Amino acid sequence: MPKGAQTRRAIVDDAVQVASKVGLNGLTIGQLATHTGMSKSGLFAHFQSKEALQVGVLERTREWFVADVMAPALAAPRGEPRLQVLYERWRNWVDHAFDGGCVLVAAASELDDTPGMVRDSLVRMEFDLHESIATVAAGAVREGHFRADLDVEQLAFELRGIMLAHHHAARLLRDAGAGERADQAFAALLSRARSA
Amino acid sequence: MPKGAQTRRAIVDDAVQVASKVGLNGLTIGQLATHTGMSKSGLFAHFQSKEALQVGVLERTREWFVADVMAPALAAPRGEPRLQVLYERWRNWVDHAFDGGCVLVAAASELDDTPGMVRDSLVRMEFDLHESIATVAAGAVREGHFRADLDVEQLAFELRGIMLAHHHAARLLRDAGAGERADQAFAALLSRARSA
Repeated sequence: MPKGAQTRRAIVDDAVQVASKVGLNGLTIGQLATHTGMSKSGLFAHFQSKEALQVGVLERTREWFVADVMAPALAAPRGEPRLQVLYERWRNWVDHAFDGGCVLVAAASELDDTPGMVRDSLVRMEFDLHESIATVAAGAVREGHFRADLDVEQLAFELRGIMLAHHHAARLLRDAGAGERADQAFAALLSRARSA
Repeated sequence: MPKGAQTRRAIVDDAVQVASKVGLNGLTIGQLATHTGMSKSGLFAHFQSKEALQVGVLERTREWFVADVMAPALAAPRGEPRLQVLYERWRNWVDHAFDGGCVLVAAASELDDTPGMVRDSLVRMEFDLHESIATVAAGAVREGHFRADLDVEQLAFELRGIMLAHHHAARLLRDAGAGERADQAFAALLSRARSA
């Protein structure tokens, strides 16, 4: 990786962690300068605008999610085992990836009323994730693990709900049992997907 | 209501709607002055700090939720009918109460890493809501609507997930089918709560 790209990546990695604590809107080039020890002008050479930095943070978070969650899931056997790995990796990732809360969860509330390139970038990745989950579930139908009339879009919606409830309980409420609650909800979701 | 209390309430009502679009952290006394047409010093007379204003916004949102969601639920017959009204009112309230997204959902991500009186206020109301849901579900067990070994805390966790997934789909993704997805998930939750 060329030096410039390495530096840019190191800045974005820092920015992801800052954003996980203060949100995408709370992230400023000035604050990031303090955090990285770089000059503001040095940072501006890599990101010409706050929006470009925010999109960089979202894209880096997505790359990380793909590497830590989606790739291991796709390496697992098709069908229910793949969905199981996706769930376990996702929950584990959310628990350990960030200094603060999940950047994507916070960004969903920050950006929902803010049209523009940052919102568009987040919406695109959320649709991709939704589609990936539905595709994995459809694979489980084809493998005969899940019932033939399963609404895979509904499953993707409900899995999202489990992950959001887990994030809410673990992060805001500091509920030590949040992971166990999420696991139970996911087990029930699988059970309903299997039974006729 | 004394004039001072009326004015304070009108300010907080405005502040709730501003916060629903820019978040609790985005809400400033300067911005609220522009929105209400009042002077900053006039606003400072009612709220001595940004934190006091933020707590006021959370408490007003909670009062509103209690009036529009919890009170009608408590007026419904005990048991499953009460949980049904709670769910319907809640979903309807989230869809229509705010100019932007739900203040409490956004605040959960904004405050999760920010210790202090504002976070404490939100956590207290979220625990109360969780307990209210569990209590309504326990009533449905006592009435014989739900099975005797139902884990009412788990039901409250999963209902939270449905509401968060609905908010995410409706607000961020502008998914016109979000309400229908949430209704289906809730119907499945009820069905599992009933069956032995």
